[in-house]
Amino acid sequence: MRWINFSHAGHTAYGLLEGDTVIETRGDIFTTWERTGRSFPLASVKIEVPLIPRTFYCAGLNYVDHLKEAADKAGTVPNIPDRAEIGYRAQNALIAHEEDVIIPRDATEKVHYEGELVVVFGKKARRVSEAEAMDCIFGYTIGNDVSERTWQKADRTFYRSKNTDTFKPMGPWIETELDLNAAHTTVKLNGVPRTSFATNHMLFSIAHFIHVTSQYCTFYPGDVMWMGTDGTSPDVKSGDLVEVEISGLGVLRNRFVREP
Amino acid sequence: MRWINFSHAGHTAYGLLEGDTVIETRGDIFTTWERTGRSFPLASVKIEVPLIPRTFYCAGLNYVDHLKEAADKAGTVPNIPDRAEIGYRAQNALIAHEEDVIIPRDATEKVHYEGELVVVFGKKARRVSEAEAMDCIFGYTIGNDVSERTWQKADRTFYRSKNTDTFKPMGPWIETELDLNAAHTTVKLNGVPRTSFATNHMLFSIAHFIHVTSQYCTFYPGDVMWMGTDGTSPDVKSGDLVEVEISGLGVLRNRFVREP
Repeated sequence: MRWINFSHAGHTAYGLLEGDTVIETRGDIFTTWERTGRSFPLASVKIEVPLIPRTFYCAGLNYVDHLKEAADKAGTVPNIPDRAEIGYRAQNALIAHEEDVIIPRDATEKVHYEGELVVVFGKKARRVSEAEAMDCIFGYTIGNDVSERTWQKADRTFYRSKNTDTFKPMGPWIETELDLNAAHTTVKLNGVPRTSFATNHMLFSIAHFIHVTSQYCTFYPGDVMWMGTDGTSPDVKSGDLVEVEISGLGVLRNRFVREP
Repeated sequence: MRWINFSHAGHTAYGLLEGDTVIETRGDIFTTWERTGRSFPLASVKIEVPLIPRTFYCAGLNYVDHLKEAADKAGTVPNIPDRAEIGYRAQNALIAHEEDVIIPRDATEKVHYEGELVVVFGKKARRVSEAEAMDCIFGYTIGNDVSERTWQKADRTFYRSKNTDTFKPMGPWIETELDLNAAHTTVKLNGVPRTSFATNHMLFSIAHFIHVTSQYCTFYPGDVMWMGTDGTSPDVKSGDLVEVEISGLGVLRNRFVREP
């Protein structure tokens, strides 16, 4: 099932996406909802951010090739985490599919994409085992963890390197059925595939991250956990189109535009 | 004006606190609201967390004595920031006035309080000058940035050292009028004053933090920014009562209880 948050004629609602038709619903997507009887062609609606999470979790370093390639570039030894420690991103930075990533005028040219699988939680949960962990998941969407690498290195916090407005595209919808082991992530730059990896080939699994984090932190419906990225990104220039595709899920497409 | 989020007979609402009377309201405290005609004695209601912020900002190192005392303890030179860089905390960790801070069973004895002034935003704002910054503020409340120092040092992220469930008491209410320069913060442990500082004696002012952060990040009504703490905390033991008082604002009181 695909849940889409959309606007049409000034009204925002959740709908079920069936083929290219959006079937409007009302109610709470996590508990009880019903069809309103209205539907729209997908091409006629504005796709919104799937949701604003209560807590916005993000696994920073969770694919080994990403760490190795970054270390090679820096001429250092890869710093591979030995424990699953979750980090955070900020809600102000979220934008929807097809909205522009605005590169601030004082950013350097070191602006990179990171295509990521996003877990959407559907249940309140604390202290779950790895065996129970996947039952907390409502569905999956796609994220692009846009990063300004000069600020990321120079600053004490990630407030502008990763949390500048528009630096967190998320969408286009939430898919409740996904064969994780069959899923493949491909990032295209201006239509050309540049980064490609097995989506579930993580250092620490989704179930392990949920288990470990839940020993201390309660998850709530609508929380999200971004699962990290593999490989590296070239410098993204103004006008470039970045598409993050996860097979079985969809494509998250955003143009990068430098502020004049 | 004091806004209080409260529950009474299973119903949660915002009210105006006048003396010891809670005057119930309906509507949106940031835009339009009205009195419902009902009121309750303060002692008869359950005080709730003032709000769940959309983005939860926190200034980590913003009082010089706190940095100097921490460095003295560690036998190092104080690392005083030369720029205002905002950090983040997580929504799951918030609890209300009079609710218990639960120390996890695997935490060390190095559990500390940090009494902080909390800014509550009332307007959507981006790129504001220092002169305009204070106009974005709806009011102020009190926070206790509870920290497990062993985890804080050992872990790569703050997920459990600062964001364990119950580690972020906030309240008891939002005060819209506060004379910042007259305000004094006092933290009492079991009734005995232990930490005391001029609330507004910050390394980087509230206006400066809002100005700098807003160059990259949009603030929304209901966002909060915790402003950091001064001095140091002794190790807090199970059963200890911690009271953070800010003059002109109120007292945030929470008991610390170790999980059996």
